[in-house]
Amino acid sequence: MEYNFATRIGGLKPSAIREILKVTQDPSVISFAAGNPSPEAFPAREMRAISDDLFENHFASALQYGVSEGYTPLRELTMKRLREKFSIGTDDDDLIILSGGQQGMDLTAKCFLNEGDTIITESPSFIGSLNCFRSYGAKLVGIPMQRDGLDVDALEQALKTEKNVKLLYLIPTFQNPTGYCLSIEKRKRVLELAQLYDVPVIEDNPYYELRYSGSPIPTLKSMDTDGHVIYVGSYSKVLAPGIRLGFACANKKVIGKLTVVKQVSDVHSNLFFQMIAAEYIKRYDFDAHVAEVCSIYRRKRDAMADALQKYCADTLDFVKPDGGLFLWCDIRSGKDGAELCRLSGKRGVAAVPGVAFSVDPSVPVAAIRLNFSLPTFEQLERGSMLLGEAAREL
Amino acid sequence: MEYNFATRIGGLKPSAIREILKVTQDPSVISFAAGNPSPEAFPAREMRAISDDLFENHFASALQYGVSEGYTPLRELTMKRLREKFSIGTDDDDLIILSGGQQGMDLTAKCFLNEGDTIITESPSFIGSLNCFRSYGAKLVGIPMQRDGLDVDALEQALKTEKNVKLLYLIPTFQNPTGYCLSIEKRKRVLELAQLYDVPVIEDNPYYELRYSGSPIPTLKSMDTDGHVIYVGSYSKVLAPGIRLGFACANKKVIGKLTVVKQVSDVHSNLFFQMIAAEYIKRYDFDAHVAEVCSIYRRKRDAMADALQKYCADTLDFVKPDGGLFLWCDIRSGKDGAELCRLSGKRGVAAVPGVAFSVDPSVPVAAIRLNFSLPTFEQLERGSMLLGEAAREL
Repeated sequence: MEYNFATRIGGLKPSAIREILKVTQDPSVISFAAGNPSPEAFPAREMRAISDDLFENHFASALQYGVSEGYTPLRELTMKRLREKFSIGTDDDDLIILSGGQQGMDLTAKCFLNEGDTIITESPSFIGSLNCFRSYGAKLVGIPMQRDGLDVDALEQALKTEKNVKLLYLIPTFQNPTGYCLSIEKRKRVLELAQLYDVPVIEDNPYYELRYSGSPIPTLKSMDTDGHVIYVGSYSKVLAPGIRLGFACANKKVIGKLTVVKQVSDVHSNLFFQMIAAEYIKRYDFDAHVAEVCSIYRRKRDAMADALQKYCADTLDFVKPDGGLFLWCDIRSGKDGAELCRLSGKRGVAAVPGVAFSVDPSVPVAAIRLNFSLPTFEQLERGSMLLGEAAREL
Repeated sequence: MEYNFATRIGGLKPSAIREILKVTQDPSVISFAAGNPSPEAFPAREMRAISDDLFENHFASALQYGVSEGYTPLRELTMKRLREKFSIGTDDDDLIILSGGQQGMDLTAKCFLNEGDTIITESPSFIGSLNCFRSYGAKLVGIPMQRDGLDVDALEQALKTEKNVKLLYLIPTFQNPTGYCLSIEKRKRVLELAQLYDVPVIEDNPYYELRYSGSPIPTLKSMDTDGHVIYVGSYSKVLAPGIRLGFACANKKVIGKLTVVKQVSDVHSNLFFQMIAAEYIKRYDFDAHVAEVCSIYRRKRDAMADALQKYCADTLDFVKPDGGLFLWCDIRSGKDGAELCRLSGKRGVAAVPGVAFSVDPSVPVAAIRLNFSLPTFEQLERGSMLLGEAAREL
């Protein structure tokens, strides 16, 4: 039969990154294209000890249906840590466990965006979120990124002129794909604008704890006094991504709606790993684990930044990020990042063209995104050298 | 702030069952209200052996990001079993691993239903699916259930008269909540009508393998020649529900769309348990496990049917189902099932009023749904006795 699909998914294509990642299955390819944490950072030994305990003593509940809002001890431990460590959450807030941070964008978009409504995002921004918003028939308005975060004047202008703006989507800290941080001054301004125009803000914050240098900067949510911020966090980068666990913290009314929508989406997240995560936080020193993860990635970030400085300083312009998993390179010649990726691909190095993260992908972008968490030190060095060759050929 | 939620979720409320289940947290309550498999049926020992192996030898991939369509060996093993055992799947079909069967309804609804489009369902039907369709702003048209499945003449009439019918949703085998099966004659008629009116059919089939008596009946999908049937299966009832694993098998074009939409929904399903499920199928005798599960539930079904016959024959009318987890009781007096649930609740027995499964919940339903998989044999006996008392008081 000929299928008559819904209009909302008409323009939705598999993300460019997904297609690039398929190419990088070839083990001879050095991949700077992924966004994967390093397996060295997974606390597998500790998870195994908890898993054995669950199978031995608690399998009847760990393998059974759970509630949509998530396993109560994990909700409480997550909330407690957010509150005590990051000053996140008020008495009006609640927390839901999600099947990864991505589900936070999915459920929030579903709860807030009528078809044709506008969502304002950074541009470039995370392709998975942009495609998610597109999948609800939303109109995306992109605000240019600067090295201290999005252009807040352009944001104000958009809030003034765009119709039916229902959400603002930001990755304020170690943004994907740029690695940039929204400055504290701009954070205050964003919150003022959100209040003035009464628009809820999704703060997508999966990289916040991956800081390797510089001083911590408060989250938008910790400065939110009246429920404008919907905070989305993830256990993908601090535990492991394959377990698909994240969370959202927001006003109770919002969490109530997200819960009802989650119930009809996947009922609840994998309960066994919710219990593993809760036990992990209880039994082990989570902060010490995060510090160890950071020390792995700090060395990798340094290795990539050093190698790029050595091999690409003449062709690529970048800021060494204080955290996260990505490094954004502007191409000094202004030439197309997609062409650079093609040339580096021929040399066996995969990178993602900047245009893959654009709200308007019809305009070429003279930049590429590089990931430093997954490659080995040897790959970071050699890949940067080959990238430099490709950039000089551009 | 005051939140301005999207229209599509305006009428969406937590399901009545969810609220009833909260009451049944009280261990003194005998619950016939749940839809949970029995923990006796979970292959926990085998899963633990595989889990240890994964943590020992494969944790780097098992805890890492995976692909949205699912872990390849699990996709292939699931497809192989569907093909060889149930004649499901053609060369034009493909299969996607889902985060439970529920996600099959969610993603299919998102891919096919514009707001205001019509979906035809059985009535009563599974509340989780009905609410899912409602959450996309669809118009639900319910077709009355009969003891041999939905009224196909009423279905034809609806297909003739309703506008923009984009999907037909059926649980043809051991339906939730009734336990009824769509007869082979009606299956053929449903497929003819789907072809005639060119409407895709979701065949939601989580209970198919839980057959305790009678002869197997072919799935709609196995009789589908031209891609009208989107088959949704689940590992919840044959492995365990807490791991959230299901699958959809349909024409490649449909699976392609579901994959793109899954990518923006939760990226992929828990990879660790996808690998456990694949290894389980490889290492152990899945059919023997299913047979064992059936032998547990067969005895429970018999125990409940016998007890109801003993204590409730004068007040309740029911068909002993050949499989599944549920037994539907019509109230002979024609009085409201919600009132019977209230009276039985006062005696410490929880059941779900029939109206909870109605497409139009404003009309009282003289029936209740009972679950027999979770209660103990003692609870099945005592609960039925107390239910009989309540029914005579009605």
